[in-house]
Amino acid sequence: VPPTSPATDGDRPLVVGVDVGGTKVLAGLVGEDGSVHHLTRGTTPGRMASPEAVEETVAACVRRAAGDRVPDAVGVAAAGFVDATGARVMFAPHLPWRGEDVRARLAERVGAPVLLENDATCAAHAEASYGAGRDAGSMLLVTLGTGIGGSLVLDGRTWRGAQGMAGEFGHMQVVPDGAPCECGRRGCWEQYCSGNALVRDARSRLGVEPTVLTELCEGDPDRLTGPMVTAAAADGDLVARRTFTRIGEWLGVGLSNLVAAFDPALVVIGGGVSEAGDRLLDPARDVLAGSLVGAGHRDVPPVVRAALGPEAGLVGAATLARATYC
Amino acid sequence: VPPTSPATDGDRPLVVGVDVGGTKVLAGLVGEDGSVHHLTRGTTPGRMASPEAVEETVAACVRRAAGDRVPDAVGVAAAGFVDATGARVMFAPHLPWRGEDVRARLAERVGAPVLLENDATCAAHAEASYGAGRDAGSMLLVTLGTGIGGSLVLDGRTWRGAQGMAGEFGHMQVVPDGAPCECGRRGCWEQYCSGNALVRDARSRLGVEPTVLTELCEGDPDRLTGPMVTAAAADGDLVARRTFTRIGEWLGVGLSNLVAAFDPALVVIGGGVSEAGDRLLDPARDVLAGSLVGAGHRDVPPVVRAALGPEAGLVGAATLARATYC
Repeated sequence: VPPTSPATDGDRPLVVGVDVGGTKVLAGLVGEDGSVHHLTRGTTPGRMASPEAVEETVAACVRRAAGDRVPDAVGVAAAGFVDATGARVMFAPHLPWRGEDVRARLAERVGAPVLLENDATCAAHAEASYGAGRDAGSMLLVTLGTGIGGSLVLDGRTWRGAQGMAGEFGHMQVVPDGAPCECGRRGCWEQYCSGNALVRDARSRLGVEPTVLTELCEGDPDRLTGPMVTAAAADGDLVARRTFTRIGEWLGVGLSNLVAAFDPALVVIGGGVSEAGDRLLDPARDVLAGSLVGAGHRDVPPVVRAALGPEAGLVGAATLARATYC
Repeated sequence: VPPTSPATDGDRPLVVGVDVGGTKVLAGLVGEDGSVHHLTRGTTPGRMASPEAVEETVAACVRRAAGDRVPDAVGVAAAGFVDATGARVMFAPHLPWRGEDVRARLAERVGAPVLLENDATCAAHAEASYGAGRDAGSMLLVTLGTGIGGSLVLDGRTWRGAQGMAGEFGHMQVVPDGAPCECGRRGCWEQYCSGNALVRDARSRLGVEPTVLTELCEGDPDRLTGPMVTAAAADGDLVARRTFTRIGEWLGVGLSNLVAAFDPALVVIGGGVSEAGDRLLDPARDVLAGSLVGAGHRDVPPVVRAALGPEAGLVGAATLARATYC
């Protein structure tokens, strides 16, 4: 049974942000300046788990981030489609939620009002408020995590879409009859450019070329992870570096399409894969500059790394929750 | 030498709209209710012509549309990138303008203030004001002409882009290393779904299958036009009908990408190719419903034909010119 009265820190409301991704849950206390305290993490129960199992993981992370206190508001960034009212996760390829009233169920578990929003929309709000997009009037955010999410900030406002489902860039078809996707289609962009794509590409080289990745995963391709590829590339491993070049080039292909459509002032790349920095972004910039329509007759927008790191989603969710409830 | 004082029709300002496309120029007097009078047309000088030749064609059409009178304002919809200030056409794949100050040069020729805007942005403004999108808060317009143009209306406003270059949907890459495009890239959407793509697809069947198209073009594939394919399909010609099915399916592929990204309330299809109506739109609707990510968990937006026909661009340009100058 959760405690029932909020214990604020003096006059300052206590706001917790949570990011529910396909593999992990991140939570933290978020200050008015966007700073994060008491960062805590959990493992997301798999797609075959019950919705309740995911909700209990979220609630446990909120309790750890808030210490013994009850927060005044909780913002939840979810890797899925959130309906226009912000009550339900309608569909989430990597999570078990399918239309459940997640906002009300989480509010009951944590004993505080909950704001629910798509994770990329939250990250975009945070980057536009405190991060890489602070000075840009319009911004395209592409987050490369397990899959690809994203969001558009136009004239300073996040565009949620008519049904709250804008920004699903990962399921843009870039290869007809291409690689099968968890969404049921084929050739989706996230099959060529995401954390999953990075690991799959690197795995395909194990045993083919000498690479430190073989040692890092102890000879078991199933144990290879994205952070291993990032670390190996940083250490000079050529196989890992070429993997980032290929993923980066596919990033550039998708960005060319999105920039042609939106014409944003700035492109911001977030998510775990973006931790590789210019190793990923330089090939993307090259492809964008070479293939954006009318590239010789316009400014190609800068492509920069997100400034807030993996906490962007929870910071944005908490910021939106604070604006709504505090 | 143009006359120097406007001759208004009583108190009502005289506003002319012009649409400068890749193959033709359309002009007309546009009333406050969006109605078009004195519709006139000219042939666009080819890409190898001088900028001045195109400007003289535009001015001649304005003079014909306005009769002997000098308009109070002229709106020009151009099939190209218009800069953020609305003064220059920066780049136009099918026109010779490359950074010229088209607005000032045309204003001098016609003796009236000129508003210059991208043609698809104008058409979207017209459809959102008087046409298919009158009741929709957000709308994706895709215009299938010689190439593919388009525009986004979000919360009732046309999104022009940071540099005025949003909506270049035709150059979304849908096939890696696909068909070469006039823009210099390969595999652009407009190579598979546009007036040019329609004619190319139909041409490839001449002499392969029996079709009335062979007679319509008098045995010369170079004389085949889009309207011939539309007419043949309406008359029941199977080759022409299958061509529309293929173009419509490619329309659906691109729409799936754009709807996943923007989540508009409504999709409006304009341009000459859209005159085929459901013959084109039904295959597109099927592909969209079958391949839009999360399609089972959301409403798939309606795909409807533009209401204003080929005059949408000039109506929108005139409406914007009236709002600015009258």
